[in-house]
Order: sequence, then C-alpha cells, then structure tokens
Amino acid sequence: MMAKKVLVVGGVAAGASAAARLRRLDEDAEIIMFEKGPYISFANCGLPYYVGGVITERNNLLLQTPRDMKRRFNIDVRVMNEVTQIIPAEKKVEVCNRMTDESYRETYDYLILAPGAEPLIPPLPGIDKTNVFIVRNVPDSDAIKNYIMTENPRTAVVIGGGFIGLEMAEMLMDAGLKVSLLEMAPQVMRALDPEMADILHSYLKFNGLDLRLSSQATAFEGEDRVMAIRLADGSLIPSDLVVLGLGVKPAAGLAKEAGLKIGSTGAIWVDEYLRTSDPFIYAGGDAVQVKDFITGEDSYVPLAGPANRQGWLIANNICGRSLPYKGAQGSAILKFRNMTIAATGKNEYELNRAGIKYLTCHIHPNSHATYYPGATQMTAKLLFTPDNGKILGAQIVGSDGVDKRIDVLATAIRAGMNVFDLQELELAYAPPYSSAKDPVNMLAYVAGNMLNGDIEVTYWTDVAQEVSRGAFLIDARTPEEFKYGAVEGATNIPVDEIRNRLAEIPKDRDILVYCQVGLRSYITTRILKQNNFKVKNISGGYKLYEVIRK
Amino acid sequence: MMAKKVLVVGGVAAGASAAARLRRLDEDAEIIMFEKGPYISFANCGLPYYVGGVITERNNLLLQTPRDMKRRFNIDVRVMNEVTQIIPAEKKVEVCNRMTDESYRETYDYLILAPGAEPLIPPLPGIDKTNVFIVRNVPDSDAIKNYIMTENPRTAVVIGGGFIGLEMAEMLMDAGLKVSLLEMAPQVMRALDPEMADILHSYLKFNGLDLRLSSQATAFEGEDRVMAIRLADGSLIPSDLVVLGLGVKPAAGLAKEAGLKIGSTGAIWVDEYLRTSDPFIYAGGDAVQVKDFITGEDSYVPLAGPANRQGWLIANNICGRSLPYKGAQGSAILKFRNMTIAATGKNEYELNRAGIKYLTCHIHPNSHATYYPGATQMTAKLLFTPDNGKILGAQIVGSDGVDKRIDVLATAIRAGMNVFDLQELELAYAPPYSSAKDPVNMLAYVAGNMLNGDIEVTYWTDVAQEVSRGAFLIDARTPEEFKYGAVEGATNIPVDEIRNRLAEIPKDRDILVYCQVGLRSYITTRILKQNNFKVKNISGGYKLYEVIRK
Repeated sequence: MMAKKVLVVGGVAAGASAAARLRRLDEDAEIIMFEKGPYISFANCGLPYYVGGVITERNNLLLQTPRDMKRRFNIDVRVMNEVTQIIPAEKKVEVCNRMTDESYRETYDYLILAPGAEPLIPPLPGIDKTNVFIVRNVPDSDAIKNYIMTENPRTAVVIGGGFIGLEMAEMLMDAGLKVSLLEMAPQVMRALDPEMADILHSYLKFNGLDLRLSSQATAFEGEDRVMAIRLADGSLIPSDLVVLGLGVKPAAGLAKEAGLKIGSTGAIWVDEYLRTSDPFIYAGGDAVQVKDFITGEDSYVPLAGPANRQGWLIANNICGRSLPYKGAQGSAILKFRNMTIAATGKNEYELNRAGIKYLTCHIHPNSHATYYPGATQMTAKLLFTPDNGKILGAQIVGSDGVDKRIDVLATAIRAGMNVFDLQELELAYAPPYSSAKDPVNMLAYVAGNMLNGDIEVTYWTDVAQEVSRGAFLIDARTPEEFKYGAVEGATNIPVDEIRNRLAEIPKDRDILVYCQVGLRSYITTRILKQNNFKVKNISGGYKLYEVIRK
Repeated sequence: MMAKKVLVVGGVAAGASAAARLRRLDEDAEIIMFEKGPYISFANCGLPYYVGGVITERNNLLLQTPRDMKRRFNIDVRVMNEVTQIIPAEKKVEVCNRMTDESYRETYDYLILAPGAEPLIPPLPGIDKTNVFIVRNVPDSDAIKNYIMTENPRTAVVIGGGFIGLEMAEMLMDAGLKVSLLEMAPQVMRALDPEMADILHSYLKFNGLDLRLSSQATAFEGEDRVMAIRLADGSLIPSDLVVLGLGVKPAAGLAKEAGLKIGSTGAIWVDEYLRTSDPFIYAGGDAVQVKDFITGEDSYVPLAGPANRQGWLIANNICGRSLPYKGAQGSAILKFRNMTIAATGKNEYELNRAGIKYLTCHIHPNSHATYYPGATQMTAKLLFTPDNGKILGAQIVGSDGVDKRIDVLATAIRAGMNVFDLQELELAYAPPYSSAKDPVNMLAYVAGNMLNGDIEVTYWTDVAQEVSRGAFLIDARTPEEFKYGAVEGATNIPVDEIRNRLAEIPKDRDILVYCQVGLRSYITTRILKQNNFKVKNISGGYKLYEVIRK
C-alpha cells in the first residue's frame, strides 16, 4: 500500500488533534500541516488570562511547537504558510509562504480543513483605530498587553457579553481599569435564560462593571486612537482601550471558493463522518456545521471540546475506521471572579425556536452540606420534556461545585436520561463535597414532582398577571423574613402554621406560594393541594425574585 | 378511606426521609417516629468534623428537631423511645420509653424499619475502658470532644482505615495529637485497589500519620484507662485515646427476632420495592441488604445517599406508587487534608470475586489546563469489560476536581455507558475548570485504544515477571528524567528519538514501555507496534511505580 499524503489546514485544536491522531494510527503517512499564523496548537482559551497576567509565562500558551511536532509525530509543520486555494479536481492546494511571499502547490490524498473561525467585526466608523483590539491569537494578546503596559489606559470598553467579552472585562478590571461592557441584547451570555443571566448581571454590577445592556456602539471617536464610543442613544463613553468580543463566524471562505457545500449556518457542511461534499476533504472545528445533539438541527458550536473530538474522529475516518460525530450539545462554562456560570443543552429560547415543548424548575442548593464550613449557594435550572421528563438542558450559576453539577447533567443528557433516572444517580457524598441528596438529585426530585402532578409550578414572569386575574399570593416564610422584604400583595402564612390557618385561604381562587428558595413553599403547596386548593408553587422563590426585579 | 397509621423505627437518614415524604404524599396519615437515642435526623457524616472542631456549632449537627418535625410535618416524634419487639401477626410494636422505663404498644398499618447500623466492636481485652471511643452519634462525639478538652491526650490510636477511621485520624492530628492508625488489611480504604491505596498511604505518612498496615490490636492495656495497645506481633503502642472505626454491621436484630427474612449479608432482606418478607413492613438504610447495581449480587452498602433514596421510595410505595430501588453502586468519597479519594462501582477484588472479566487503565491527568494557575495532578483508574467496554468502576486519588470526575463516572455507570460513549461526553470546558479533553475523556481514549487493539497494556505487578522471562524494558522519558530515577534494567530511549533508534530494540523479545505518566509511552508503543514489535505499555507509568514500590 502506498503511503497516503494528508494535508492539514490549520494547526490549533481540530487540526493539531487530527494530525497527531493520524500519526499514531499511521506511521507511514506523509502529513503536512499549514498554519497561516506564527504559532500552532496555542491555548486560545487562555488568551484573556495571559492578557490579564493570571497566566504569567507566554511560553505556557504554546502547547506544541513545530519542532515538537516534527520530533514526536514526524509532522511537517509550516507556520506562516497560508493555504489560499483548494483545487479539489486536482487534489491540490495552493499555498502562500507569508515569510517569502512565494506561492507553491501541494498535492494530497486527503485534505483536512480546520481553519477555525474569524472574529465578528462590525463595519463601524473608527473600528480600525489602533486601540481597538480583538483576542483571537497570541499576537493579538501581545498587542493588548503591550498597549496596557506602555500606554497606561484608565478606561476600557468591552463590546460583547459572551465568553471572551466577560473574561476580558474581568481581566481589565483586575488590571485596575474602569471597564464598561456593551451588549446589544438585554442580557449577557446567551446560553442562559434571562432570569439566570440576571444573577450574573447583579454580580457584574456588584463587582463594579459598568454593564450596559441593550446598548449598541455606533462609532469610535478620536484621532488615530479611540477616545470615546458613541452609542445608538447618542451618549458617549470615554474609553482608552476597546476590546471586541462579538463572537465569531466560521472561516469558510476557502471551502466556499473551492465549491464545497456550505451549510445553512454559514459554516462548512460535513456529513456525520465529518466529510465535506468532496469525498477526499474532511473538515472539523470552528469552521464546520454540526448537528445539535438534542434537537438534531443544523448547528454552529465553536467550542474547544467538540473541535478536539472532531479532529480525532477525522483521523480515524481517514484511516478507514468509520466513526460518526454524534452532535454537539453546547456544554459551556465561564469564570467571573468567584462566580461560575455554566450551561449544557438547550435553553428556553432555543427550545421555543425549535418548537420543542418543555418544563423548567429552579432550585438554590448548597455546594455541600451546610454544616461543613465553606458551603456556597448556587441557582440551578433544569429543562425537560413535559411527557417523559427527558432532560433537555441545564443552567447553573454559583460558585463551588457548579462545574461538577453541570458535567453530571451534561453526561445525563448524553445518556438520554430523564428526570427519574436523575433521581437515582448515586453520586459520591461526604460533607466537604456534597449533600446526601446532591443538587442534581434535588433538581430531579422537583422535576419529578411536577411530572407526577404532585405540584404545579408557575414562574415570576407570570405571577403579576395571575394575581391581576385574582390569584391569592402566599409567602410561606417566617414573619421575620417577610418583614425584611416580600412581594407586594402577598399574605404571610408561614409553612409551620398553614395547617391551622386554612380558613384564611380562599377556596375559590388560584393560590400561588413562594418562600425563600422553594422548599417550604413546596411543602405548603402539598398541604394545600391535599386540602383541595388550586395551588401552584412559584419556581425559584423569593431569592430569584430579588434578582430579576432589579 | 381510613387514614393509615405508619410507624417509623429510626429517625436519621432513611427514617426521616421516609416520614417527611410520606407526609408530603398523605396529609391524613398518622405517622409516629421512634428513635431510641436523644436526637433524630442528625448529621452522622459530620461527626468526625465536629469532634475535630471543623464544625464549631453542635446545633448545626441537628438537622431537624422533634418540634420541627411536628410543626412542619405533623409527625409524632418520640425520642428515647426504643422499639423492643415487632409483633407482625398483630401489626403491633412494643416500645420502651427509656426516660420512664415504661413499655407500651402501638398498632400500625405499615411499619418502616430504619434502625441503621451498629459499630463493629471486637471482643478484645480492655476494649470497654473509658477512653475507647466510637463515633456513631452525637453523644459519642460529645464524649470524645470532652475527653480531649479535659484530659489533654498526647497520643491516639485509631483502629480501622475506612472512612470514619481516616477522618478521625485527620481530626486528631489537626488537634495536635500523635496518631497511629492500625489496619488489619495490607491497605486502607477497601474501595480502592492496592496500587491506588498506595498513593493514599504515601500521603498519610507524609502528613505524619503513624500508619500500621497488616497490624492487629490484641489487647488494650492500662487500668481503667487504656495506656497502650498490644499488637499481634507483641509490640506496644502508647495511646492516651483510642477510636474504633472498624466499620458497621446492620442493626437487624429486631427484624430477625420478629421472624423477618434476613439476607445472605446479615442485613434485613427486602424485595426491590424495599418490602421485607412481611407485606406490611418496609425497611431501608444501613440495616438492609440491596442488590449491587453492577453485579446484581446481594450487597450491603451502608451509605447516606442510598439511605435517603430508599426512605423516599418506601414512602412512595406505601402510598401505592410502585417504585423499585435499582441497586447501589457504592459511590464514595473521602477528604484527607488536601487529598480527595473517591471510588464508584466495582474494584478488581470485587470483580474477581464475582467472576467478572475486566480490563483496567491508569492515567495522571491535571485538574484543569496546566497553563492556568493552580492545576493539580490526579491519578485515575477505570475498570471496564474486555468485550464491549462497559464501565464497571472507577477510582480517583488527587485533589481539585476529583469529586467532579467521580460523579461523572458514577453517572456514566448508572447510564450503562461504555468507554466509547465516555469518549463522546461533551463536558464544560474553560481553563480554570478542565481541559478540552477532560480527564474522563482521556480515560476513555486510553481504554478505547486497548479495546481496539491499538495498544496492549501491562501492569507493574507483572513487569518483573515479564522481564525475567526476557522482556525488554524501555524508559521513554528524557535522559534528565531517567538520571533522577528509573526502573532497574530499563533502557532509556526518549520518545522523540525512537524512530531513529529502532535498531537498538530486539525484534524477538517482548517490549515493555513506560514514561512518567503514560502519554509518551503510548506514542512510543504505537510507533513500535507499527514497526512490528511485540510491545506493551505499562499502565500508570513511572509515577505509579514510584508510589507502589515504596
């Protein structure tokens, strides 16, 4: 058998993963990797932390050098070599060596496209000024870091409230800058539903971030440097430094020009084996369109985990092991100071758009047994189907242990579990780590009660309307808690008094109950339901109310 | 319908959980809970931490008081009331009020047995002396705490290297005592396989614990107080204080005397609906025998998580909702200072005993991306079937992030996943939390390579024999690493030089390769295999070798 020749376009997550796996499967293959930038296999998820000085050693960002790849994997890595054209009919690519500006061609038996994504840069006046930065690669990060050190900026505006925007905002605040964050949408972190994002909004403001939601930049004003940003409402924000974190789009240009099929999301179309419309060309990573694991819809999920998996699969498929990619579920996590924000699966917006029916519940469990020191509270939301309770998504905002619960839920989603399966999870318990009923179990018990008809639930977004239609609102907390703040119009009947005070509750009206986190209101709801009241528990309790009314 | 009358024997995990759920399902039931001790619903998993002063408020151990249970759940809680006899034929129990020493009878429609477990106390001379303690309930803990404060002991001996023994050893060391731990077996923490336990042994000794494995106490010497402990080998250990942590046995006496069926493990037999051999008597928690989730064998798993679940299920079943308990998998976790030790599913010993074939692999991944500060290394072991890769068990020893990975693996086991499913898990990644390939994914990739025949693996326990039969041992690390310590007889061929040094490797001998953690040896193994050598990777690498040879 002739040794096969495989070209890899792009040397970061999917490309590097594909090339290394390919070598492990095939010692004889000729493998050439082209990277248009100066570095391969760099830690792009670490860039904000390098800018902020959390990662102190620049070298630590460079996970593999071309020399490493040659010695360990016998891969011919060509940095500063950009593939400018694919000629599928001839199984050739055109390459431009950016150091010499010379072009040359290479043939292939198989081509792997892993060109990644490009930052979204809106065509606004002044956006090309020298102090407007993006954070996509090591030179970008060097530029911001250098600017901060030499120019001593006092103020910064971050545009975009996604992962990079929030991480950069944190880093710039930690560096002592006064930071404004502009987000066009009414919330940051689109993976979260609005009420969950509100918890983060509170925390961002508490930490001193000038958070501007539903705000749009229209121009970057100043001479060669931005001095201020003009917003759509006409106001100006002074800014010595601008960071764009508006998200990315797939780098699909090369594939499109070569006549490869482009998907409905604008990313490169691939089949389940990650093969493009040309049988000798595979593609993976931030440039490709995948199936959503839950809805089966066409989806664009530019995340490092799926990119690495796809690279690995492509190598297997080229070596004749047919392994499908089973879709992305969008598991994601963000650190902002002491807060951890995480999501997996679908949120309400996405389920509504896909026409999938769902139920949700909220709880506020502690990271571990409260009698052991250091427990912190988190807010967790579960989304599940109303018929069989299949888990569709989850969102958690808190501190310690958020990452653990989201990963358990991500695993449960991958396994196709429903809420009754989730009740049965036997997770490892000792007081420093969890409670005998883990937060994941608790979510499942609440959801199970809803599915079994043991409780009906309503949501704060609907309460005002239900009250205006005559619903009777009960606060099931203690008089002390009630005194320190309650929902307008609520009647305080503590859970421990409810059995003796049934006569105070109107039989002919809908009853809505809340407490602080939802446990006492649940017990109250059960007592009232068994006494033939028409009663609903308000999901998330007063704790959630306090956040979303702000 | 007449209101049913339900008696609950035992007011801690399973009993309290059953009673509260029963009330939520049935407002009309008459529920009486009998607890022979002074407290219900106390945090028994927190007791060592209360003794050690980590938990400072004694009240925090008391999760529910009888008054709380009455007011919130309308449950008649009778502490210091011991059920002394069950008369199934009459559906009655005999109760002794320990405060008045009066006996009385109560009838029931349903009886729930949740009497828990009793500490194992060997009949050794002197074991009844006043400074020999157990840690099963709040008064026990008060007694140790009081003894330490008033008597100022300098030395302590803990007998038994399970959860309570190790937690108590930590707490006593933190209180400034010189602590010896005696364990009859050659290792502590029986949930772990020997090589994983060795990592903990090293850490225990490093922390100053006088660890005595394969050691047995034969007598407790002294006047009314123990002064020293005599071991089976004749030696004496001075000891101002003794704590017994020898494990527990089911409190099955009451059930046995009533003629209820006792299981092969000595615990109360129940069917999958947690019903005893009497249709009106249910039982749950540390007194019952359950099915092992993985092997289906009769099993005794006295853990808080399963106890709570069983209590909840019993209440449902009494209310006519038939819900089976699907078995326990033994997920468990222990903190010892900065080390976390966790396991789920079956270990090698248990699989061998059950006659189940398995394969294992070891890796040493980091808790999160190493370029982000604070990453710590863990050692993880996976056990899986050799045919289809179904996950049978996992063990992890490390620090940060151990609890997360064991819970993901516990979930995967519950879902019946195999290693190929585990490769596909899309876990939430950002540099402070994980790597793009999470440790769980990495375990699965290694296991998948074994199942696919891409690598063969051997273990340190077999290496000496294989070498004596002629195997050639390669150390694939750098010359610098090799110089600082290597396995006797190994030849140093760094992975990056292997392709040029194939001529040095004997074609006719078995080749065994190791590196530090297993990645470079894996790459070496793949290169050699493709060059037609008969080669095996040594699981766990030099890092594991260093621990187990000690």
